[in-house]
Amino acid sequence: MHDAVTIDWRLKGFPASLHGLSRTEVAGRQASLLEGDFPMPVAILKDSAIRHNILWMRAFLEAVGADICPHGKTTMSPELFALQKDAGVWGMTAATAHHVRVYRQWGVTRILLANQLVSPGDIALVLDELEKDPGFEFFCLVDSIEGTDRLAAAARRRQLSRPLNVLVEMGAARGRTGVRSISAGAALSAYVVTQRDVLALRGIEIFEGIFPSDADGPDQARAMLSGMLELVSEVYAAGHFADGEILLTGGGSSLFDLCAELLTRVDLAGRQRIILRSGCYIVHDHGTYVRAFEAIRERRPDIDLIGPGPRAALEVWAVIQSVPEQGEAIASLGKRDVGFDADLPVAIWHYRPLVDARPRPLTGTLSITKLYDQHACMVGSADLEVGDMVGFGISHPCTTFDKWRALPVVDDDYVMTSFITTMF
Amino acid sequence: MHDAVTIDWRLKGFPASLHGLSRTEVAGRQASLLEGDFPMPVAILKDSAIRHNILWMRAFLEAVGADICPHGKTTMSPELFALQKDAGVWGMTAATAHHVRVYRQWGVTRILLANQLVSPGDIALVLDELEKDPGFEFFCLVDSIEGTDRLAAAARRRQLSRPLNVLVEMGAARGRTGVRSISAGAALSAYVVTQRDVLALRGIEIFEGIFPSDADGPDQARAMLSGMLELVSEVYAAGHFADGEILLTGGGSSLFDLCAELLTRVDLAGRQRIILRSGCYIVHDHGTYVRAFEAIRERRPDIDLIGPGPRAALEVWAVIQSVPEQGEAIASLGKRDVGFDADLPVAIWHYRPLVDARPRPLTGTLSITKLYDQHACMVGSADLEVGDMVGFGISHPCTTFDKWRALPVVDDDYVMTSFITTMF
Repeated sequence: MHDAVTIDWRLKGFPASLHGLSRTEVAGRQASLLEGDFPMPVAILKDSAIRHNILWMRAFLEAVGADICPHGKTTMSPELFALQKDAGVWGMTAATAHHVRVYRQWGVTRILLANQLVSPGDIALVLDELEKDPGFEFFCLVDSIEGTDRLAAAARRRQLSRPLNVLVEMGAARGRTGVRSISAGAALSAYVVTQRDVLALRGIEIFEGIFPSDADGPDQARAMLSGMLELVSEVYAAGHFADGEILLTGGGSSLFDLCAELLTRVDLAGRQRIILRSGCYIVHDHGTYVRAFEAIRERRPDIDLIGPGPRAALEVWAVIQSVPEQGEAIASLGKRDVGFDADLPVAIWHYRPLVDARPRPLTGTLSITKLYDQHACMVGSADLEVGDMVGFGISHPCTTFDKWRALPVVDDDYVMTSFITTMF
Repeated sequence: MHDAVTIDWRLKGFPASLHGLSRTEVAGRQASLLEGDFPMPVAILKDSAIRHNILWMRAFLEAVGADICPHGKTTMSPELFALQKDAGVWGMTAATAHHVRVYRQWGVTRILLANQLVSPGDIALVLDELEKDPGFEFFCLVDSIEGTDRLAAAARRRQLSRPLNVLVEMGAARGRTGVRSISAGAALSAYVVTQRDVLALRGIEIFEGIFPSDADGPDQARAMLSGMLELVSEVYAAGHFADGEILLTGGGSSLFDLCAELLTRVDLAGRQRIILRSGCYIVHDHGTYVRAFEAIRERRPDIDLIGPGPRAALEVWAVIQSVPEQGEAIASLGKRDVGFDADLPVAIWHYRPLVDARPRPLTGTLSITKLYDQHACMVGSADLEVGDMVGFGISHPCTTFDKWRALPVVDDDYVMTSFITTMF
């Protein structure tokens, strides 16, 4: 169905010459970033890096013995979801009820909503989807009696043909959502069992990504995982998990190796399934996740055995529109085009049209001093002229992806071969 | 044409019960935020505030004797553009060539691109639009010989039937784009005249919004405006402006009163037209622009003579999904839903469904300590329960608007009367 989407005037980052063309049709046009075919700025995805990252993650999962239910919020892209499906993901993770609706339209049959489902409008939306399709497998989190009651009452009113699958979320003090102690988790699990006419307790969930990937973050994540495992033991011993598989899931995109390491030690008579939820691996970046991956390599050098690690697939390109003073330059990209929550974008490539054969690594210094909605003010020693093109790396792909409704996919020569769409 | 747009599953913030309905059809459904009809989070626009703000700005412009060419980047919304057109705006301001293309599809006939036009792809896009419609009036900025040459060369190659209208941008030291001195501005103006076969020098532009609205920001803006006026005098005396109106334009959304005050003092034998470019007035906010407007009132108390000032039209509502510890609460909104570049969102309204008749101003304290992609962690003394709804005010509407493809428009009882779309 996604092949029917065509490029049009609504999409920033595409030349008018491609309007009306579908994903499969654009390849023949050989639209080239370096030949100036694209309006600026433009966010591009490197096809080779996306494919590499998907294979890398599959190899990692095979090596550790875990499944993945990637967080779809990173890209919200049906075309990338399809690549992930082809790679054998267990399901897709959602953050909101709206995500669930969108994923369903994209044909996702197993969804883990790694969140509480609380408001009447959100609960109704999910129950609608469950009613529509008996084959739809859905899981969400609970972390309070009140929230559990809301879900149970709504499910009871609907007289659903099957129970709602829930996982108890275990959190950490001064963290995000989730029960704050093993005893609270055990009590909530027992409470869910009292609602077994409409709810099924399918497992335990954590999000260890509340901790940083450096300093004492990994130790805190280990402690959180250990607590989770104690809770799992208690709930298992009490016989409170519903029949069938027991899901143990954690995993942002920085400390997922720890989740794999600790969770795969569990044996619940073979009923356990270990599920990571990393979302950013498919895109990687030039900041946060570079550092996180270096930390993983330090923790477990054997990760190199599965081959070179993830590569940054996303770059945002802009033109130098003004060099108003020596050592200052303004590029045509801003808060509307790149994420700026983790780090500011980093200038990586420098390309002078009609002079350079290929982009070259930027020489000299160049750093963004201020990011406006549509401008980046930069200072440094790099030799820049009006009209030069600069390729920026980003940090935390989630907040760059959501600024583009579609992104050209390019080959290693920056020639467009396809495009993907997003739906934020 | 915008009336043909209907709500569907692609749009977050809308209930499924409204799918398939157009702007005019939704009013009859009486979808109610307070009755739990909407998925969470949802960004809403208050109809009364939008209409008030438009009337307020019109009264301000009449009082000071200036025109407005609102920056469309704030909302990128055809429905709001239409309201601004009805209010008699001179034109619409764009930030990128892509904006120009989108505005043209929306029927905007006069566009000021308050930016340099540099890359081949961007220049081609604008020249395409000029070729297509002899009635399209277009203006853009130049701040360098190189940039001027690029424009002139491209226009010459196209053999456009009319000159490209340019304004020289005057900047400030360590600021954004724009020439850094009166002499540089005068020299560039003279250079544009040498390209008069394809370029027409229509005026001088500044963006004083690079300065803050507090501390010495207003004084720096005054100095920048004074410099601009000196440049205007020089260029005028040299006879370098093209025949016809001379455009003098400045104005972000914080210091526009200073632009109006200083620029309306100019008399170029009646040929001058003073154009402000504020974009945020139509939405206003609960942060940056509240403070900026208070500063305006202090600078010129007579502004109250035109009636009460702009009101915040945009609120983002979320549900409390977890109260994991005393004094902590997690709401279902995050970086994907609200801007966080100026200030974090502020909790304003508290509504307990089935208990409260109406939202009440939040009592006690509540502040966001950490914003994730889809969660807000909050601490404070406010009495919150799972399932409570909280209405947040935002700061800097530009970076919240771009997170929504459509926003419900509601009446003062939070019942949906219409919706607007955006195209970022």
